[in-house]
Amino acid sequence: MARQLQLFLEEDIGLGDITTDSVFPSDQEGQAVFVAKEDFVVAGINDIAPLVFTTRNPQITCVSLKKDGETVHSGERIFSAQGPVRDLLSAERVALNLVQRMSGIATLTAAFVHQVEGLPVRIIDTRKTTPGLRAIEKYSVRVGGGYNHRFSLADGILLKDNHIAACGSITKAVQTLRDKAPHTLKIEVETENLAQVEECLACGVEIIMLDNMAPTLMCQAVALIRKRALVEASGGVNLANVREIAETGVDLISVGALTHSARAMDISMRLSV
Amino acid sequence: MARQLQLFLEEDIGLGDITTDSVFPSDQEGQAVFVAKEDFVVAGINDIAPLVFTTRNPQITCVSLKKDGETVHSGERIFSAQGPVRDLLSAERVALNLVQRMSGIATLTAAFVHQVEGLPVRIIDTRKTTPGLRAIEKYSVRVGGGYNHRFSLADGILLKDNHIAACGSITKAVQTLRDKAPHTLKIEVETENLAQVEECLACGVEIIMLDNMAPTLMCQAVALIRKRALVEASGGVNLANVREIAETGVDLISVGALTHSARAMDISMRLSV
Amino acid sequence: MARQLQLFLEEDIGLGDITTDSVFPSDQEGQAVFVAKEDFVVAGINDIAPLVFTTRNPQITCVSLKKDGETVHSGERIFSAQGPVRDLLSAERVALNLVQRMSGIATLTAAFVHQVEGLPVRIIDTRKTTPGLRAIEKYSVRVGGGYNHRFSLADGILLKDNHIAACGSITKAVQTLRDKAPHTLKIEVETENLAQVEECLACGVEIIMLDNMAPTLMCQAVALIRKRALVEASGGVNLANVREIAETGVDLISVGALTHSARAMDISMRLSV
Amino acid sequence: MARQLQLFLEEDIGLGDITTDSVFPSDQEGQAVFVAKEDFVVAGINDIAPLVFTTRNPQITCVSLKKDGETVHSGERIFSAQGPVRDLLSAERVALNLVQRMSGIATLTAAFVHQVEGLPVRIIDTRKTTPGLRAIEKYSVRVGGGYNHRFSLADGILLKDNHIAACGSITKAVQTLRDKAPHTLKIEVETENLAQVEECLACGVEIIMLDNMAPTLMCQAVALIRKRALVEASGGVNLANVREIAETGVDLISVGALTHSARAMDISMRLSV
Amino acid sequence: MARQLQLFLEEDIGLGDITTDSVFPSDQEGQAVFVAKEDFVVAGINDIAPLVFTTRNPQITCVSLKKDGETVHSGERIFSAQGPVRDLLSAERVALNLVQRMSGIATLTAAFVHQVEGLPVRIIDTRKTTPGLRAIEKYSVRVGGGYNHRFSLADGILLKDNHIAACGSITKAVQTLRDKAPHTLKIEVETENLAQVEECLACGVEIIMLDNMAPTLMCQAVALIRKRALVEASGGVNLANVREIAETGVDLISVGALTHSARAMDISMRLSV
Amino acid sequence: MARQLQLFLEEDIGLGDITTDSVFPSDQEGQAVFVAKEDFVVAGINDIAPLVFTTRNPQITCVSLKKDGETVHSGERIFSAQGPVRDLLSAERVALNLVQRMSGIATLTAAFVHQVEGLPVRIIDTRKTTPGLRAIEKYSVRVGGGYNHRFSLADGILLKDNHIAACGSITKAVQTLRDKAPHTLKIEVETENLAQVEECLACGVEIIMLDNMAPTLMCQAVALIRKRALVEASGGVNLANVREIAETGVDLISVGALTHSARAMDISMRLSV
Repeated sequence: MARQLQLFLEEDIGLGDITTDSVFPSDQEGQAVFVAKEDFVVAGINDIAPLVFTTRNPQITCVSLKKDGETVHSGERIFSAQGPVRDLLSAERVALNLVQRMSGIATLTAAFVHQVEGLPVRIIDTRKTTPGLRAIEKYSVRVGGGYNHRFSLADGILLKDNHIAACGSITKAVQTLRDKAPHTLKIEVETENLAQVEECLACGVEIIMLDNMAPTLMCQAVALIRKRALVEASGGVNLANVREIAETGVDLISVGALTHSARAMDISMRLSV
Repeated sequence: MARQLQLFLEEDIGLGDITTDSVFPSDQEGQAVFVAKEDFVVAGINDIAPLVFTTRNPQITCVSLKKDGETVHSGERIFSAQGPVRDLLSAERVALNLVQRMSGIATLTAAFVHQVEGLPVRIIDTRKTTPGLRAIEKYSVRVGGGYNHRFSLADGILLKDNHIAACGSITKAVQTLRDKAPHTLKIEVETENLAQVEECLACGVEIIMLDNMAPTLMCQAVALIRKRALVEASGGVNLANVREIAETGVDLISVGALTHSARAMDISMRLSV
Repeated sequence: MARQLQLFLEEDIGLGDITTDSVFPSDQEGQAVFVAKEDFVVAGINDIAPLVFTTRNPQITCVSLKKDGETVHSGERIFSAQGPVRDLLSAERVALNLVQRMSGIATLTAAFVHQVEGLPVRIIDTRKTTPGLRAIEKYSVRVGGGYNHRFSLADGILLKDNHIAACGSITKAVQTLRDKAPHTLKIEVETENLAQVEECLACGVEIIMLDNMAPTLMCQAVALIRKRALVEASGGVNLANVREIAETGVDLISVGALTHSARAMDISMRLSV
Repeated sequence: MARQLQLFLEEDIGLGDITTDSVFPSDQEGQAVFVAKEDFVVAGINDIAPLVFTTRNPQITCVSLKKDGETVHSGERIFSAQGPVRDLLSAERVALNLVQRMSGIATLTAAFVHQVEGLPVRIIDTRKTTPGLRAIEKYSVRVGGGYNHRFSLADGILLKDNHIAACGSITKAVQTLRDKAPHTLKIEVETENLAQVEECLACGVEIIMLDNMAPTLMCQAVALIRKRALVEASGGVNLANVREIAETGVDLISVGALTHSARAMDISMRLSV
Repeated sequence: MARQLQLFLEEDIGLGDITTDSVFPSDQEGQAVFVAKEDFVVAGINDIAPLVFTTRNPQITCVSLKKDGETVHSGERIFSAQGPVRDLLSAERVALNLVQRMSGIATLTAAFVHQVEGLPVRIIDTRKTTPGLRAIEKYSVRVGGGYNHRFSLADGILLKDNHIAACGSITKAVQTLRDKAPHTLKIEVETENLAQVEECLACGVEIIMLDNMAPTLMCQAVALIRKRALVEASGGVNLANVREIAETGVDLISVGALTHSARAMDISMRLSV
Repeated sequence: MARQLQLFLEEDIGLGDITTDSVFPSDQEGQAVFVAKEDFVVAGINDIAPLVFTTRNPQITCVSLKKDGETVHSGERIFSAQGPVRDLLSAERVALNLVQRMSGIATLTAAFVHQVEGLPVRIIDTRKTTPGLRAIEKYSVRVGGGYNHRFSLADGILLKDNHIAACGSITKAVQTLRDKAPHTLKIEVETENLAQVEECLACGVEIIMLDNMAPTLMCQAVALIRKRALVEASGGVNLANVREIAETGVDLISVGALTHSARAMDISMRLSV
């Protein structure tokens, strides 16, 4: 992570912060405070923000005034850093850009989780993350009360229509994977109708994805499966329809928007010298 | 860029796409097509998508079926790639994740640009980009008809309240920068009231930012400045109020949301073997 | 992989092959052939050896004369490369070092697989791989007829004594993981006696590892489990005892030696100018 | 080295140790101890093991309970690390994988050195090291009492049959190298018979390698050379024949097996919380 | 910077300092002092030299005995470092190589600045820096009293003959850039005669470069421009003619030699153990 | 090398060549030619310049119109590249910066070599190279007719005063190195007087460096050594005194200035569209 943050800082600072370096002497100390400008579930102040500042200058000392996962309110101070003003200002944008995005994901996830409160279902993410930020974004989903689907193509098996077509049938595709893949991974299959669900059950698939099914069809699928496999609803999920989907009895609801379309939360940094 | 895309592919593929590699033989060829699932301004299919696929396998041949900046419609084919199925499938997610985000930014930018049509004003971005993706995101803003503000802290001078306070006054801060900074960069100063605007004019500031000013105050500032400096409106800009702001006569309107809160466009990849 | 091979070449070549560059003109072409000096199961000539040579010089053309997984005999030609002599000689050592090690792993794996022929059991590897070479070594295990256990700590769940102690019991540890971990991963628990095996069964553990158990105890465990979980034998496995262990009815036998103690196969490169 | 260890840790940990992170709170401290499970010459606990743990977390404090080069006995504690349990467990495998391999090389080297005790000969390594680990493996050879041959193609001159053939004769090849190579390096020539040895002596070669010669032939070569050059025996050396080779009077015996076929030593890590 | 210095150290140290490591025990402490062997303007001892030594070993403590920008005299001590002798000696060459070059640039820059003393002109650098060292070299120019031209192609606009030819005229080229480039950057145009200067003035170019003009022609250009644009003299500037050029009234004089042809200053390191 | 050139290009281009990209369409082709603006020995056009351009864009085709090591004259065309104008212009500066520096080193080396023409002596370089460019600069020395001293601290043994003092005497220091260092490296010792030279001879040192000795003292040293060791003159060598030093009969003369103080040669790039 530290290596990655170093690159982010280089991207933003380039060959030097001309404005700040011209104005502040190198030995001027100060304190920076992150302040929430709206209400949200915060993420990124436990580990990431401190790491950004100490990557810039190991002498900076940081205090997290809230914990990742807490709901913070507009006007509240959530994080502070103390050290040379030049380094506080030149690390500001990267730290804010990350915490704002992470909090956006946590907050959107929490909204989905809130919608399905009381139901035995998990809100899960997808691989539709921002390139380069997968670990950070999947962490933010967990902070918001969601769960993670696979991290990469190497740590999960998901048979989609192309794979199935290539093998000839779900049964054959599952058999191929059983023969070749590590025994530690469950097999998940994407289905579009009840016939496919039945074929999955017949060959012992561990996770059945219901892809873009209408809620009534999902209900039938859940009834058919009878807990013999985990059931994941996928496709077209939003805050308005997530509870209806959850009420079908599925175990998991995957939401690409958690990571591909979350809005950044409004946070500003106040400096006192 | 190629080095960065390599890291993005490694992040998504991990130690190998177990599902695909188990199903498809290494010499199976196929064709992948990106299809728009909604209407939007496309970005990323000229250079980025081809580079993702050829970074994965230089043998893959790509064709852009639209050009970056075109408005595409739901159902249209926008890009195709031909080559080994294993590589098409293992590069799919990274390519889509990028093109969906880039198109989201271009589309949101185009919406802002559309709102101010006919007025002599530029919609510009900020440094509120996703860490690691600044070049790509600033390119997407240009694709959508917007313009770029500075790329990094090294290629623009922006005096904010902290810098001014440290120097004692705008005049002193500007003098300090004039003495130290490269002559190639214009000096921009953040102002909150007309007195500050006047001070900027008195010391020949080249760009005056009106920070979070109400439209009426902006009008007064513009009148005061009389084209002696470029005028940038900043803070709280959205699609609803951007035209009112533009009508105050400012030259530039900066919008953080272009890059920090754009929604990903819906695009899918169809594979034929 | 190409990036990694580049580093391996830099490690071996340093600032240049003084001997070869002094003797051969830069435009001298030649052919290099890899020859087996003993019998073994070959690995690394499909993809890795060609990639080493083309990483050194993209003009080199390579032909694999055998396929990964074939048994080759002393004296047989297994791979050839054609191109500038300087590049053939400066890439020789890295290519051989990799193919010799990979073939060593494939050959040792095949020996274990041979010992358990006819029994419904998989020989699997561990995380005891050479740092930096995990993907290559796990591939070599597959080439030899073995299977892979998890690739990293992120793509498998394995509860060991420390984890269980920290939670208070197997039941509580499993519950904790069920609550927090991705649903795509099976849970594996390390057990040392039948009581622990029973506790695993009671809480639905998907894979039960029998750690350093005597064969008779393993038999009892297998009988107890009755296919309700996958059973992995681990600890102290060697070519002499692997069949006895396999006959206990376990599904998986993990062997650290496959990757940490395989002997390099003897292969030499012959050059004709 | 630290950069390399960082990559090794990333390889093993992936996007996080799901098992450990689910079970142990982030502030739980503990102590890890490496215990020898057989007798061996230890290598890697002076510098490498501490560096692995502090690369993972600079707060971890390490104590080497033995010194690299000491013979340790089964059951002895050789190294301890104190710090957050999460970091101890996630760095365990990389640290063990390295120390086990390094100790394996040191122990095998020591066995060869022991065989030639009392004779004025050096056991030396080759470039047949594991790609990526050359520095570590050559260090392990030194720990075991051996010596290093050249580190890379840039820091030693070794004329083999191909080089000699290209120049027309040993004499011409040596002349070519004398004319072009840095004066700081000795010239070594590979020979297969006494005529070649004589030609080497005639042109003042500093190191003569006797390649795959029978011991009686080696004796003749040594007699012929009469200390006018260093003499290196190479090819087919093992623990059974190394003393016979040493008794021929050669100065150096190179053994590829030291680094390409050493068995990993058995070491385990015990954690107390 | 730290990452880059790490690479520089690896380049110089290779797989280890054989001489020093053979002679000094790892726990031997010592003190190294940099001593000037001629008079010069020092650069690199504030930040760079300490960073080289602490990158090698964070335990080394450094003291800068002069400040960057001071004129030091032959025999004066300018920097000291305290720590393990092995690390002081293995970092010596990289630290000296950098400080000697940086001081050479600062000293040459100061000589140019001295020549134009009392005149309202800036000595500026170019992009003719050593690849990989741009930030360090541009810093050295500032230390010597010079100013920086643009850092990269992304943070300055400079229209040369090729660009102008491609657009058809200076006017069209300037218009094109005004339409497309960020508003934060001034536009600079290279001119060769007064007609071009007039065209620049007509279209409001902010910086006019007089390329290889004779001093009398420069005088005419300056008179023509009458402070309506910054004026930069470029081409064939040396210590002998710089004052004559400055007296033409130009604002900026760019000198490629500052960074591409400065002589290294003579500095040695004394070690006391 | 390609990786390094990639970084050099990123340093110079930053986030894009705003000027060129605004003016030239992406499909505009052109030809660039490097033209010598003074007489010099050229270096860098065989391999480096083509690699810079093809690293920027693999479609660019390059032709070297001279060979490294040739003397070229003012006005001669030495290298051409054909391809997209945008890429030719954005790679121009890095390619020129390298070729100008390399040619400067080759030319200065050739001047030293010319001074000692007819004498049996080698002009050799030192480790006083520009950090990051050692391989390139040592190559340029060879192009100019010089020879290389060691590449790094790992491929040469050089005992200096500090090492000798630490061991107690030259004899003890040499013995220590003989005992520990690889047998492939010659031992060189720095001496300041004839007594030290004698001690070196007594213990069989292979290379004796005469450090800052007056020519008459060098003559005595050479007479004393009588070809029993290679003799290197070092310290204060310049074009004026190098022949006098060479006439003392030393075998090698090392010149730090070759790489630390060479002036860049004047070369320009002409573009035709």
